[in-house]
Parts: sequence; structure tokens; C-alpha cells
Amino acid sequence: MADYNKLLEEIVQEIKPIIGEGKVAGYIPALAKIDPQKFGVTISTINGNTFSIGDVNEKFSVQSISKVFTLTLAFSKLGEEIWSRVGREPSGNAFNSLVQLEYERGIPRNPFINAGAIVITDILISLLDDPYAELLDFIRLLSGSEDIRYDAKVAQSERENGFTNAALVNFLKSHHNIKNDVEKVLDVYFHHCSITMTTNELSKSFLYLSNHGCIPKSKHNILTKSQAKRINALMLTCGTYDEAGDFAYLVGMPGKSGVGGGIAAIIPNELSIAVWCPALNKKGNSLAGMKALELFTTKTGMSIF
Amino acid sequence: MADYNKLLEEIVQEIKPIIGEGKVAGYIPALAKIDPQKFGVTISTINGNTFSIGDVNEKFSVQSISKVFTLTLAFSKLGEEIWSRVGREPSGNAFNSLVQLEYERGIPRNPFINAGAIVITDILISLLDDPYAELLDFIRLLSGSEDIRYDAKVAQSERENGFTNAALVNFLKSHHNIKNDVEKVLDVYFHHCSITMTTNELSKSFLYLSNHGCIPKSKHNILTKSQAKRINALMLTCGTYDEAGDFAYLVGMPGKSGVGGGIAAIIPNELSIAVWCPALNKKGNSLAGMKALELFTTKTGMSIF
Amino acid sequence: MADYNKLLEEIVQEIKPIIGEGKVAGYIPALAKIDPQKFGVTISTINGNTFSIGDVNEKFSVQSISKVFTLTLAFSKLGEEIWSRVGREPSGNAFNSLVQLEYERGIPRNPFINAGAIVITDILISLLDDPYAELLDFIRLLSGSEDIRYDAKVAQSERENGFTNAALVNFLKSHHNIKNDVEKVLDVYFHHCSITMTTNELSKSFLYLSNHGCIPKSKHNILTKSQAKRINALMLTCGTYDEAGDFAYLVGMPGKSGVGGGIAAIIPNELSIAVWCPALNKKGNSLAGMKALELFTTKTGMSIF
Amino acid sequence: MADYNKLLEEIVQEIKPIIGEGKVAGYIPALAKIDPQKFGVTISTINGNTFSIGDVNEKFSVQSISKVFTLTLAFSKLGEEIWSRVGREPSGNAFNSLVQLEYERGIPRNPFINAGAIVITDILISLLDDPYAELLDFIRLLSGSEDIRYDAKVAQSERENGFTNAALVNFLKSHHNIKNDVEKVLDVYFHHCSITMTTNELSKSFLYLSNHGCIPKSKHNILTKSQAKRINALMLTCGTYDEAGDFAYLVGMPGKSGVGGGIAAIIPNELSIAVWCPALNKKGNSLAGMKALELFTTKTGMSIF
Repeated sequence: MADYNKLLEEIVQEIKPIIGEGKVAGYIPALAKIDPQKFGVTISTINGNTFSIGDVNEKFSVQSISKVFTLTLAFSKLGEEIWSRVGREPSGNAFNSLVQLEYERGIPRNPFINAGAIVITDILISLLDDPYAELLDFIRLLSGSEDIRYDAKVAQSERENGFTNAALVNFLKSHHNIKNDVEKVLDVYFHHCSITMTTNELSKSFLYLSNHGCIPKSKHNILTKSQAKRINALMLTCGTYDEAGDFAYLVGMPGKSGVGGGIAAIIPNELSIAVWCPALNKKGNSLAGMKALELFTTKTGMSIF
Repeated sequence: MADYNKLLEEIVQEIKPIIGEGKVAGYIPALAKIDPQKFGVTISTINGNTFSIGDVNEKFSVQSISKVFTLTLAFSKLGEEIWSRVGREPSGNAFNSLVQLEYERGIPRNPFINAGAIVITDILISLLDDPYAELLDFIRLLSGSEDIRYDAKVAQSERENGFTNAALVNFLKSHHNIKNDVEKVLDVYFHHCSITMTTNELSKSFLYLSNHGCIPKSKHNILTKSQAKRINALMLTCGTYDEAGDFAYLVGMPGKSGVGGGIAAIIPNELSIAVWCPALNKKGNSLAGMKALELFTTKTGMSIF
Repeated sequence: MADYNKLLEEIVQEIKPIIGEGKVAGYIPALAKIDPQKFGVTISTINGNTFSIGDVNEKFSVQSISKVFTLTLAFSKLGEEIWSRVGREPSGNAFNSLVQLEYERGIPRNPFINAGAIVITDILISLLDDPYAELLDFIRLLSGSEDIRYDAKVAQSERENGFTNAALVNFLKSHHNIKNDVEKVLDVYFHHCSITMTTNELSKSFLYLSNHGCIPKSKHNILTKSQAKRINALMLTCGTYDEAGDFAYLVGMPGKSGVGGGIAAIIPNELSIAVWCPALNKKGNSLAGMKALELFTTKTGMSIF
Repeated sequence: MADYNKLLEEIVQEIKPIIGEGKVAGYIPALAKIDPQKFGVTISTINGNTFSIGDVNEKFSVQSISKVFTLTLAFSKLGEEIWSRVGREPSGNAFNSLVQLEYERGIPRNPFINAGAIVITDILISLLDDPYAELLDFIRLLSGSEDIRYDAKVAQSERENGFTNAALVNFLKSHHNIKNDVEKVLDVYFHHCSITMTTNELSKSFLYLSNHGCIPKSKHNILTKSQAKRINALMLTCGTYDEAGDFAYLVGMPGKSGVGGGIAAIIPNELSIAVWCPALNKKGNSLAGMKALELFTTKTGMSIF
């Protein structure tokens, strides 16, 4: 059995000088005040082992990482039908997605850009009796932790400042790609983004993607083997904003990042890994977090390629 | 004194075969059900004469033509200061203005595209105690008619279907170019668009632009001579959507159109003219209305060029 | 008869402090070394009078102003048929026209952007036996001066550095909107741009546009009255790059500018005016030249609006 | 040892009905006349086994697949330095890359779009004494076959019709991202695209990418292990035009396609596979070829995810 404890210590040693480099997301007060020196990594293997170092029991805002959970939930319920309303191609766009949306007539390029995730949220609202409670339950199931909650203050603050997302949802509605009330969609969407988790919880909650769609411990089948591969493919090509190419090039793992400074990634058949460091690079990904993952694959030789 | 009666009869004779050609605006029910055979023209001279033919006493939705009134009102109150929040260049864009807005960071290209008119509405809300009543009063003053009103049903219907405009206002807000509440801005904006007028009223209400900013009959100075020229310049370069070049080329008058099928235009020092025919060409301008104006300048030899 | 001598002196007095402000076009050495302090204005009336001040007998590179001559020549020979290959709408694009060309499938928006002028050049090559000689002859006719020539050094330098235009012509060819050899088209195009004229010559050469298509002195009919109006309309909406709206707003005359620092403009039925000052503003128009024209229309009250 | 013969037969059975569906590339005569019913697949394992079925000894134009060879050659010589002139992100653009190039100031998004491959060609011209001969030698080394040649007729035909690529190279030159003469760059580029190979040769020539940069048979180290992974990452995110997301989703292998109807792909540590069927889908990838690869990964359960 691999012992990753020593490796994690090495990584932290090398990463230390750049922890705090970059810029904490400042568009809402609740995120802006996070300490940029926070840093934690957790590795969970499909065999049930956990290795962690740093601030691994501290909750942080998962933000866009929640898009993996909402996509998984919608995909498990509707299957390939979801692709009639959202694409599967990288956005490749340094510009905000409004431009691309307009060219492509209201079909977002993929479920991991905001517009695409908003469409997925709309799908969930149509499918679920209580989209607030059921998503929490779903993440509790994935992570094996009951302590998964929304941060009402963050959700509220996002709504009060979320004019770009309000523009997106209205634009999607004008193209008939939103079926529910725009205010309702925004509220559910901002709640999903506000979920807080620790790296320990986040790492565990991604294990089903390393394990062909099945939660290793509880043996719950979340997705089919084929569906799990497909979510991994989407994470690789679209999971880290306009830096997906670089992430594949430098890290070589399917992963998803959020502006809260978290990144979760997986190696099929092996493990999942979650890292958190709030200061972001220019593309909006955790600067030290991305470097830590690059060191991990370089040092272990692990890579999907 | 010119007698335009015979000319108007000639024009109607030539226009008849194409009245009804094109497509009535169908995005809200209240507009979609208008009879496409309606056609009226009114000429008002600065000397006080009126010549008209057809359905010239029937109210129609002025829609974007109201943007000339809101711009005039804002310009008369704030002067050149308004140009810090909206540009003066043609949009030259077959695509919806969201793309352009995004490239240009929330400064709409001109006050006659929707985004620009929404910013002007926001300015008026900040300036006026009662933006609903004061704009009506202003148009009553310009037209010399007390019978100018909002069509509440149209305003309501626009709001219920106006997701593109809701996207625009939210996007502008995200770029800090909207100061008031987005719902308030949309409501005032849709009310302005819903104003109904006859070609007789509309023609009279544009006379100040033929007469150096002064209403010929009442001698009210609405704008300075220089300001009136500038509004005319803006109408010429930006007044007829992505067809402004063609309109200048074929018609040669400063003018403003609306999706209700109206067009109002002027010849400096001479006259104003309003035409109404609900069926639109592909660029969104009244098909027969534009042809009627082209015939008018061809037959009279009038043109600003 | 108006005496513009005093007016020109006033304008020069007011303009002096900003002569040299801005930036001389630096993309080819031959243009970059021009003295930014040069300044000249010439007014030519349709009655045959000339008023001028400053460096009005010095040759400068007319550059894009030649597009008015090539368009006039092609339009006089082919008439409305030219509009099947080039549009009549403002480009409204701060970005280089390659983007717009791509969206609009190889039909340039208007004949005054580079792509459009290149298509007009291609049309002339197909129509004329000797496009080099015949254009010179044409401008000699318009200006009444035999001393109109190409600057072979400028043409050569443009060709050696003209990779953007080479990209444009190849792109147009890929869309089948260039009929002749791309190298030939570029060579003729760069020669046209390299023509040198004085403000005296340039002013005279625009008089046919103030006079319904007819050269006042020689009575040559270059264009029909309707065609002359149409060229004026195009100059107003498209003649000054992405500053056409501002030019109409501030100056209020149809005009055409070039990166050599020249601007030529007209008042219908009255006069033409040419100004030259090499330093350009951010939009590529002569900074002091544009201000001089603004002062001219402000002081005389002349305007087409 | 896996025996893929039976599997290949199954795949051919299932694929048969769609062989010929789609459209053979028609932009040059030499490609347009290819029989759309051609179909071949070859699998090469790193252990030295070969399995093949169909037209596997027939030469076809590899076109864009040659971009993997030119990138590998440049990368092996210059290392990470090449990324100063070309990016590593998916283009995500249904539009031709001129638009994107313009926004991103002459730095192509990745080395697999035409603009990026042209920059790589320019790099090779600067590095190599004889870029024509040395690339052939390189592919002969990779494939273990001496019989690798340019198709002079195809290269010539591409040049005569290649106005879009001529536009690209001129545009890149205008942004100073081409160091050599544009005609030279185009000639070398079109020669590279014209290389003809069989699926047997192509499959063998990709084995170094399955084997950490080392040719299994000859033990030549072409790239380091890390470099090989990185080329694979680039193929996955950018290798199949604007269908890279779908290719990752449906096939799950790093691969590169060409408009000649070929696709080459790999499974790390296992094998490479080359397929050829000339009729293309709407995104420009071999329709039946892509389906064959999807069947291959579905049936074997192989995938990098």
C-alpha cells in the first residue's frame, strides 16, 4: 500500500513559498475576507485510506465544484437527454460566456461554465421535489458526511451581487432554455454554489469518479461505469475554466476547481484528491492548489496520459 | 408654399403593392395582432402646415421611436455629461448587442440600441421625480397633443416576455452602468416603449428637430441649436438599427424607427415626416414605410446630402 | 460672397496649441518621419473661390482618402451592381475588420474599410485596362491638376509591411470575393493609397460631391445627382473609421480621413474643405484636423443637420 | 496476450452501414475524388503485435495528423520554449480561427489548429537545415517505414487553393509571430499536410506516445516521459477540432484527426490505433472512423478515464 504521508509533506515544503500568491476572489464580501494562507490537501484511495495535511478540517465554499454534483445528479436521472440543452465542448473563451452563448443561440458549451450549470440547475428544479434538500442529501451520500450545508449568507450575498448570472439566466430564458422562473433558478443556483465542505469531505465525495461510478465504501452505484468515464472526460476538457488545456498538460488529471480556492481531481482506479488554497491565479484557479496537484502527478508519475 | 398632398397620393399609389409585405413584430401578442395593411403618412412643416394620407389618426405603438424623446429629455437636462455612460457610434452589428456590450465593458455604443436606451432610462429615473408622468408630459408638449398615453397591456406583455432586455439591464448593472433597481429600470423602459401615438402626433412631435431645437408653434426651446443638430446626427448614424447605412444611402434623412412599424424623420429647416406601416423588413424597419420615405426624398429632391 | 480668410485665421489661432498632439502613423518608415507640426486647410467653393492657410502646397500621402476616388470610379462605371460585393453599413467595430469579415462571410461592411476598398480595387482591375494610369487620370480630372502621382517608395514600403492587408485579400479570395490575382490586387491597392496631394488639390478634387456629381469648373458630370448624394451618405456613416458617429456628432459634414493626416469633407451646394495635420488621435483620424473641421462648422453654423 | 482480430471484425460489422456517410473533403480536387467507401483500422501494441482489417495498406493523405509529428519534432528540439509562441488551450470555436487569433493578438490557441501548426512550421524552418527532408526522415524513424513521401500534387493543389491559410500566415506575420518568408512557410506547411501513409504505418508511428516517448521496437527515445504525456494531453483537449469534448466523452483516448479521413489515437502503456474512412462529419472528423474508435473503447472497456 502506498503511503502518501511523506509525499504530502514534501509537496507542502515545496509549495510553501507560493501559498498566498495570487488573489482571493473579491466579488462578494464573504469570500473576500478568507485568509489567503489557508492550505490543505486530502488524498482518498478507493481502498479506503485517507492521507491529509494542513487545514483539512476547515469548511470552505466549494463554489463551482458543486457543478460536478449537480451534473452527476441530473445525469443519473435523465441520462444522455441532458445534452439536448447543454453541449460537451470546451468553451475556449477568455471572454465571458455571454458572447459565446449568443453565437450559439442559448445552448451553453458545457455544464461547467456558469451558463451550463444554470441550465443543469433548471433541469434539477423540474425533476426534484425539493432541489435544496435533495442536493444536500446527495452530497452527504457521496461524502459519507452528514455535516454538509448551505452557507445562507454567501448565497444571499451572491444573489445581491450576481448581475452577470442574472443576465445569463435571462438570456437563456430568452432562448427558451430555462423552463422555470428565473428568480427561482438563480436562488437554487446560488445555494448550490454556497455549499461548504472540508478537503477531507470533498476528497471522499469524488471517489465514485475514481471507482467507475460506485462509492467504494457504501457500494452505492451513483453512475454507470460509462457515465463515470464521461463525467471525467468533461472535467478534463472543461473543468478548470479557460485553463483546462494547461491543467491537462501540467497536471494530467480530470478535475474541477472553484473560486473558493478548492480543486478536486481523480486518478481512475486509484484515488481522489482535494486541495484548498484561497488565492487564485489569473484564470481563476487556486494558484498553489494547481501547483500542488502538478507536484503530486510529477512525483508519483501518476497521470491518465 | 409647397403642396405635398399630390405627392403623398403619388407615393401611396406606388407603395400600395408592397403594403403588408414583410412581417409584423410577433414577440408579444399585443403587437402581433396588428393589421399589416395599415398605412399612414403625415408631413408637418415648420411653417405650421400639415399634409397627411391614410391611417393617420390611428394610435400605434411607437416602441423605439420613444428613444428619441428619452434621449432629448436626458440631454436637455444633463448635456454632454450623458456621454460618459453611453457612446455615439453606430453598432454595426447584426448580432444582438450583448456581444458588443461585453467587448466594450458595459458602455453601450449609442443611445438608440436597447442597451443604450436602458442606460438613458436609468439616468432619467435618477433625475426625475416621476419618470412615468414627466415623459408623458414632455411628449405632450412636443406633439401639442394631450392625448398621449402608455398602453399598460403592451408594457405588461413586454415585461413578461422581455428576457433579453432583462439580460441587458443585469449585464449593465454588473458593469456598474445602472444606478437604480433593475426591476424599476425595466418597468420604466417598457412603459416608454408602450407609448401610442398617431402619425399626425408623431410628425408634430419631431418638428423641434427640424427647427434647431425649438417647437415652431409654441416657441418652446427644447434643445440648443447645436444639441438639435447632434440628435439629428445620432439619428442618421444610429437611428435605424443595423440598416442605418442603407437608410442614409437610400433615404438621406435623419430618422428613427420602431418595431411597431413607425418611422419619424426630418429635413432640417423644412419639415418632419412620420410614416406607419406595421410589416417589417429583415432588419426590423417598416418595409413600406422605408420605401415611402425613399420615394419622398427621390421625388422632392430633398436630402441632407 | 463669404470671405473665409478671417475665419481660417481664427481657426488656426485656436488650433495652434494642439497641432502636433497625437501620434504620426508609424507602421511604415516613409510616413513615420513626417513633421507632426505640419498643418494646412483649404476651402474651395462651388463658385470657384479658394481660401487657404498653412502648408497647403505641400504634398502628403492621402492614404484612405483615395478610397473615395476608387469608389467613385467603380460606382460611375458599374452603378448599383457594386453592392453585390460590398455592403453599405458602418462597421462599428473597434476590432480589426477580419473578425467582422469572418462573421459576414467575405462581404466587407462598406467600401471605406480596408477590406471593402480592396474589393473595389479588384473591381477596378477587372474593369480598367490600366488601373494604375486610369486612376491617376481620374484624380487629375477631379482636381484640375496634372501633378498627381504615386509615391513609389511608400507603395513599396506598404507592400513590404502590409501583412494585415495581405491577410485580408487572401481571406476575401477564400470567400470568392476577389477575382484577380492577390498580388496584383495588393499592388494596385497600395499604389492607390500612396497617392500624394496638397490640401489645395484635395479640396478641389472633392467639389463634385458638393455639386451633385458635377465638377463646377469643367462641368464634367462624374456622377448623377442621386449617386453623389449616396457617396456623401456613405462618407457620413462610414468615412472616419470607428469615429464616424463622433465625426457626424461633432463636425456634421460628410468626410473621409486617411492615416497620412488628411481629411476632406463637404457641405452640399456650398463647398469642400481639406485639412492636413499628420498627428492622429486614437481612432486614427487627424487630431488637429478633426478639431479644425469642428471649429469650422461651429463658427459658420454650417452643417447638414 | 489480447487478440484484437475478432474485435476488429465485430467493429467492421457494426460500422458497415455508416461507411460512406458524411462528406469527403472537397476543397481540393485531389482529396475530393477519394472513394468514400474506403475503410481500414490498424492496432499496434507496444509489445510488437499488429492487428488490422480493411484497406490498411493503402496510402491516404494524413493532413492534420502531421501536426503531431511537427509538434513532436519542434518540442523535442526546443522544449517548453515553444509555448512562448503558441498556447495550450482548446480553441472552442465553431468559427474559423481568424477571429480568435485577432482577439489573442497573433498567439494561436494551440499547435493543432491551423494557425498554431503554421507557427510550429515556422519554428522548424528556423531550426532545421532541410525542413522537407528532415520531417520525412523523422516520420520514417517513427513508423519504421522508408516509404513515407510527400504527395507533390496535393501540396501544389493546397497552395493554389489555400487562401485561408495564406490569410492566417500573413496575419500571424503582421503580429510578428512568423519569422521566415510567408511563401516559404506556406510551402513547407502544405508539404507536411500532403504526406501519405497507410493505417499500418500511421498506427506504428504513434506507438512512442503510448510508450512514454520511446519507440518500442527500436528503443529510440523521441521524447521524455513527461513530454510524451503532455503531447497526449494536448491531443485529448485539442486534437479533433471543435469536437475534442465529444471525442473525449465518447471515445476517451488522446487522438488526432485529419480531413483526409484518418484518425490516430493511443492508450498509454498499451497500444496505438489508426483508422481511415474518408467521409467526414460536420465537425470535419471521419464519421465512421470516430464511431469505430468509440466501439473499440466501449467493447474493450479501455479508456484513459
